[in-house]
Amino acid sequence: MKVNRNFDNLVPNYLFADVARKTNEFAAAHPEKEIIKLGIGDVTLPLAPIVVEAMKKGCEDLKYKETFKGYPEYEGYDFVREAVSGYYKRFGVSVAPDEIFVSDGAKSDCGNLPDIFSQDNTVLVTDPVYPVYVDANLMAGRKIIYASSNRDNHFLAMPDESVKADIIYLCSPNNPTGAVYSAEQLKEWIDYAADNNAIILYDAAYEAFIEDDSPRSIFAVEGARECAIELCSLSKTAGFTGTRCGYTVIPKELKRDGHSLHALWYRRQATKFNGVSWPVQCAAAEVFSNEGLRQIQENLNYYKKNAKIISNALDELGIYYTGGKNAPYIWLKCPNNMGSWEFFDYLLQNAAVVGTPGEGFGENGKGYFRLTSFGDRDKTVDAVGRIKNLLQNIVSI
Amino acid sequence: MKVNRNFDNLVPNYLFADVARKTNEFAAAHPEKEIIKLGIGDVTLPLAPIVVEAMKKGCEDLKYKETFKGYPEYEGYDFVREAVSGYYKRFGVSVAPDEIFVSDGAKSDCGNLPDIFSQDNTVLVTDPVYPVYVDANLMAGRKIIYASSNRDNHFLAMPDESVKADIIYLCSPNNPTGAVYSAEQLKEWIDYAADNNAIILYDAAYEAFIEDDSPRSIFAVEGARECAIELCSLSKTAGFTGTRCGYTVIPKELKRDGHSLHALWYRRQATKFNGVSWPVQCAAAEVFSNEGLRQIQENLNYYKKNAKIISNALDELGIYYTGGKNAPYIWLKCPNNMGSWEFFDYLLQNAAVVGTPGEGFGENGKGYFRLTSFGDRDKTVDAVGRIKNLLQNIVSI
Repeated sequence: MKVNRNFDNLVPNYLFADVARKTNEFAAAHPEKEIIKLGIGDVTLPLAPIVVEAMKKGCEDLKYKETFKGYPEYEGYDFVREAVSGYYKRFGVSVAPDEIFVSDGAKSDCGNLPDIFSQDNTVLVTDPVYPVYVDANLMAGRKIIYASSNRDNHFLAMPDESVKADIIYLCSPNNPTGAVYSAEQLKEWIDYAADNNAIILYDAAYEAFIEDDSPRSIFAVEGARECAIELCSLSKTAGFTGTRCGYTVIPKELKRDGHSLHALWYRRQATKFNGVSWPVQCAAAEVFSNEGLRQIQENLNYYKKNAKIISNALDELGIYYTGGKNAPYIWLKCPNNMGSWEFFDYLLQNAAVVGTPGEGFGENGKGYFRLTSFGDRDKTVDAVGRIKNLLQNIVSI
Repeated sequence: MKVNRNFDNLVPNYLFADVARKTNEFAAAHPEKEIIKLGIGDVTLPLAPIVVEAMKKGCEDLKYKETFKGYPEYEGYDFVREAVSGYYKRFGVSVAPDEIFVSDGAKSDCGNLPDIFSQDNTVLVTDPVYPVYVDANLMAGRKIIYASSNRDNHFLAMPDESVKADIIYLCSPNNPTGAVYSAEQLKEWIDYAADNNAIILYDAAYEAFIEDDSPRSIFAVEGARECAIELCSLSKTAGFTGTRCGYTVIPKELKRDGHSLHALWYRRQATKFNGVSWPVQCAAAEVFSNEGLRQIQENLNYYKKNAKIISNALDELGIYYTGGKNAPYIWLKCPNNMGSWEFFDYLLQNAAVVGTPGEGFGENGKGYFRLTSFGDRDKTVDAVGRIKNLLQNIVSI
């Protein structure tokens, strides 16, 4: 028996482990200091009450023979797929219910979708990058190439016609940079994909943070239905990080090698997945009801205000950053040309604030730092005050 | 972009679609007949009340900031892993909590575990077979070989030293045959695996149906910790088909090519999976409490009695079968040498009873038929009466 030696090519990623270790060491050495964590990519507000009630009702259904639910549909219950389709309609995008696959989360789909593609494809990711795109494809033995997101392009890598890619991961609003593609920029990627017979895997997990007219779905842009698959999540939209539900859209007409990608993914899911828990699907559908959307918007507004508090401070300090608007992440240039771990230590030691060193997300993260808006309001305000006090005299960029 | 052409090697499996189509056609033609379905592999009894209460409590936790849960551990919460470890202890098997990975179901793990193995391995399955083992590995381009389960070996295929396999799927109690390996038989497989440096993927999804001293876990047998991974499910143990939770055990000492399989699977899950919903994990832990086990046992006893009712009738009719004892499935020889679809039609047309044609599970299923004990008691009794009336005069085997 041979193990999959492609795992040897994975770079051990100790980013969050190292962050936790350094934070714990600091806490032990300075028990009097209150540490504030703005590094976390996890939500902190509870679920919307109406969503919890729907989930409890779903649990209750399982208690009685008459309402009990056995194996779910592999692709999700129709009422959930219709609710998601209706959600798309609210921002002007037409996606049919039967193009929607409900899953246990966008991360699973990000990692599992490559199952339907040949090993012999070149995968393009933007750098900095959400590590799942890279690791899932390295495990399968695929070649990875990087498109540079950097200050010159406002951390929005654009296609290079001289490069040949088959599978393209785009994330907008981006994790970790918070940068958001415009419709015109997405059209360039779509045209590149069409010219190269490529497929775009579009991670729209943070679409609910978009406030301006940037596209919330790649399907808002012409030509996307012939080259794109969209992955979406309730994790950040509705606080489902611990509840687990996402969805993936594959247009019916999307084909490669004469194969329907929709049919291939259905077969993959029917073979290696068994659907999402009934109570969770009940909760997911309620998110997209009128009252559900109203309630989740309160949470989104809370996080958006946190993002504004952080980005306003960076504006005052004159620090370069992306995100903060249309995104829960703020991606900042470490002041005084500090390295990202150097800045991590500086901020921890002098302000007891924890963020995420950018180099954990790739080469282009060196010298950058990620803060998130998912924390508590009072603590975010407190952390921002400390950061301003610390940096206002040293910032020279 | 090239699609994964290994999908072309999958045999379209229309088994359950064809069963449904024929059943619907019969229903339309004979609206006066009450059709009874004993083909279904899904449970019909509701969840245990105490399990539902734990799940509802888990939902309630998500409603308040103080008790809210974000991203779960990839491998499951410690309290769930400890509960599973305690469950193993009850039947005398020692599995440490940190050897247990909680997942959204055994089917997912069956399909995804091959990710940690090289494509260049030969997979052995027993025939008849649960199709997931075959399809998941065909998708990955692996060679499949079949070990024959047949009447001569009581549908318990045994290892053949002249055959070289790297990955071995065993399912006991078996789906679809209900046959159960003894400790001595499993020891032969373990010795074969040791001699061939192979890995056994042991599907114990139906272990809760074992009433005699047959092993409920492969880890009850000496040597298994050096060659086996065990997959288990709450689907049939506790009626979780629509709730979605399972667990996989990988011993810490299990290594191949110098790699810990436990570490490889952790890395796989950390990359392509994000854990199980909090309310579902709360429910799963409660299954293994004293009261939870008492309540699920009532459901198990109900299904076991159904199995006995069916197998007693086959005994009276003198029809050969496996399963029915220690298993929810009854796998019978079609009377008068009928083909399995021929018998399906015969039973549907003359008794309005639906079962599953054995050939849907492989070559060796030809001429065999699967009935299940997961139905309603009264309907099972009724169906068995009809079967006896129909067959008592024609059975000649």
